[in-house]
Amino acid sequence: MTASTTVRLDVPIDDLFGIHNLPYGVYSLPGRAPRVGTRYGEYVVDLATLLGDDVFAGPSLNPFMAQGHDRWVQVRSAVTAALSEDVPRAAVHSASDVTLHLPFDVADYVDFYASEHHAANLGRLFRPDNPEPLMPNWKHLPVGYHGRSASIVVSGTDIIRPAGQRKGPNDPAPVFGPSVRLDIEAELGFVVGTGSALGEPVSAGRAEKHLFGVVLFNDWSARDIQAWEYVPLGPNLGKSFASTVSPWVVPLLALEEAKVRTPVQEPEVLPYLALDEPWGLDIDLEVEWNGEVVSRPPYAAMYWSPAQMLAHLTVNGAPTRTGDLFASGTVSGPAKEQRGAFIELTWGGAEPVTVAGERRTFLEDGDEVVLRATAPGAGGTRIGFGEARGRVVAARHGREV
Amino acid sequence: MTASTTVRLDVPIDDLFGIHNLPYGVYSLPGRAPRVGTRYGEYVVDLATLLGDDVFAGPSLNPFMAQGHDRWVQVRSAVTAALSEDVPRAAVHSASDVTLHLPFDVADYVDFYASEHHAANLGRLFRPDNPEPLMPNWKHLPVGYHGRSASIVVSGTDIIRPAGQRKGPNDPAPVFGPSVRLDIEAELGFVVGTGSALGEPVSAGRAEKHLFGVVLFNDWSARDIQAWEYVPLGPNLGKSFASTVSPWVVPLLALEEAKVRTPVQEPEVLPYLALDEPWGLDIDLEVEWNGEVVSRPPYAAMYWSPAQMLAHLTVNGAPTRTGDLFASGTVSGPAKEQRGAFIELTWGGAEPVTVAGERRTFLEDGDEVVLRATAPGAGGTRIGFGEARGRVVAARHGREV
Repeated sequence: MTASTTVRLDVPIDDLFGIHNLPYGVYSLPGRAPRVGTRYGEYVVDLATLLGDDVFAGPSLNPFMAQGHDRWVQVRSAVTAALSEDVPRAAVHSASDVTLHLPFDVADYVDFYASEHHAANLGRLFRPDNPEPLMPNWKHLPVGYHGRSASIVVSGTDIIRPAGQRKGPNDPAPVFGPSVRLDIEAELGFVVGTGSALGEPVSAGRAEKHLFGVVLFNDWSARDIQAWEYVPLGPNLGKSFASTVSPWVVPLLALEEAKVRTPVQEPEVLPYLALDEPWGLDIDLEVEWNGEVVSRPPYAAMYWSPAQMLAHLTVNGAPTRTGDLFASGTVSGPAKEQRGAFIELTWGGAEPVTVAGERRTFLEDGDEVVLRATAPGAGGTRIGFGEARGRVVAARHGREV
Repeated sequence: MTASTTVRLDVPIDDLFGIHNLPYGVYSLPGRAPRVGTRYGEYVVDLATLLGDDVFAGPSLNPFMAQGHDRWVQVRSAVTAALSEDVPRAAVHSASDVTLHLPFDVADYVDFYASEHHAANLGRLFRPDNPEPLMPNWKHLPVGYHGRSASIVVSGTDIIRPAGQRKGPNDPAPVFGPSVRLDIEAELGFVVGTGSALGEPVSAGRAEKHLFGVVLFNDWSARDIQAWEYVPLGPNLGKSFASTVSPWVVPLLALEEAKVRTPVQEPEVLPYLALDEPWGLDIDLEVEWNGEVVSRPPYAAMYWSPAQMLAHLTVNGAPTRTGDLFASGTVSGPAKEQRGAFIELTWGGAEPVTVAGERRTFLEDGDEVVLRATAPGAGGTRIGFGEARGRVVAARHGREV
């Protein structure tokens, strides 16, 4: 008498990781090498075993992503079909038994600044005397900058409080030490599946063919380090110590029902940024701080769309590669409880909030932040993005370096 | 009667690629896969064959660099010894017979702004009403920003004129088209051989153990695109279309004689940027524009040293990896004929120069720029860096995108 070698997985259709989601990630079992899997309910299903396809037998999504859009469609269809039948028991693991890893090798990383509400809030905070909170270029192009790929870590990685230089406007000289204004930025990250050659821009209309999927992204920010360093060449050490991504990449193919029109863009954008049917994504984010939800930023309110960001990024001929990641910038809505950064939520620290019974402006050592999100899926379901979790631990080198 | 299988290479001691240089690069013969070689006089010598070491049999320096400083010392010594004896004929190629490739896989790329003369010149150009040309942070930290790794190309690659948005201060709205202020920045690039873990800063004193070598670096810059986009998050598309590196990585071990004290830093830097014996590099650059040398920027005048740049880059706990590249920013000396960018040399286009009989402010299609450099080597010799060459070709997509 032998145990059955197959099993039928029973996952409710309305599970956040139900049949209409099927995100991709990289997992490992204790003592085993990482491989590509999909999350289905409370299961992680090994895709190399399920599909008999070795492109999933390695520790990164990149080889699969590089196969291109037609393959993404085909594999999604094959996984959907396979999970409706009996599946090999050897392919199935409990989500609680696996370790999740960074799901792809990050090539170039760019962070945008695509929320009008966020950009305007920061303008009011940093330039209170200026009646116009947005910079003159802001509505003409999606402002963005390159960041550090090596610092991108998977959910659950501790965030070591960064040390660095800071200087207040009235300080005689900069001082060195652990950041005292450590913040988050709740963002989405867009993963480029297939790249584009040097000299060959990706048009806004073609962007969807290059975009593989979406992750949660926490762009941890040391506001004091950033404020002192960022003129004139932009943020560097105030950001480069760590960024957290969620382990499951939700395919853009799963987000058809989440597509919404982006806000009206006025003044009209230049032709290379125009789309016949401009699409954004109706994704609801949630920011949890020490167990308490403090903000619910709506991605649908973002001014610049993912297609516009990719078109802009490449319009000068810059090449892209499989594994490029571009993030949206902080997602903030018009209301206070929709702000995706604590510098906005506490208005530069002037309006502390109470979090799980304690007063907070910026992050304290031991604080934990979790980003989550859901979006409309097929058949009236909702798609879950899992989480991007990070706990702040004390600076290691702030005093003695 | 068979031909000898070994050969003695006769290279003058004072050749710019003599026995005291021995840079590393990646070459290929027609129809063959790229491999690591060294340049010795007019020869390219295959290192896997010379040393019987397969770490050099691939298309990138990264595996060798990752082996660390002790191995770099050992291999340099072994190559020096081997080239003083008969060498296998199969290892030797004429430099004119090979194609040179990007010598390493670029991980993260950061561009600094380490020349006081360059920063002050740009301050005077962009903020003429401000009596202090340097920003308040400039003498306290090496200002820098992350750039696009995918756009880094090897010498000889054509530079496609980038298209993008630009808006002059008096224009009613931005326009789109090929850049009309295409410029260069003559820089050096520093290649990180061994990385450092997240949370573990590299001290200024330890930087030398991590730095593998030095390349020429041309940070092509579209000044009109840059001027419109860069506030508040720094340069992006004005830079990300292309950067050119020289194919030969000169080991830091070859530059012992080139070490010089950096200029006095006043105000005193914070302890993490201080060195007991601050060292810069006495490297003489040369900028050739359409066959005419128009500038000779002295690297010895740079304010911030390579060790300080690496210490700063990591002081917040940011990790580094084998293949990280950080560039110095434009090398400009105090004199006009030492300026390393055309925006400085022509004072924002207001003072055209005559180049090979033609009037120039910024780059025209068909123009070619070559960077070269030499430095003191052992025994009174000079070390050559080869060249970083690029020719500007017309924009491809500037009109129709």
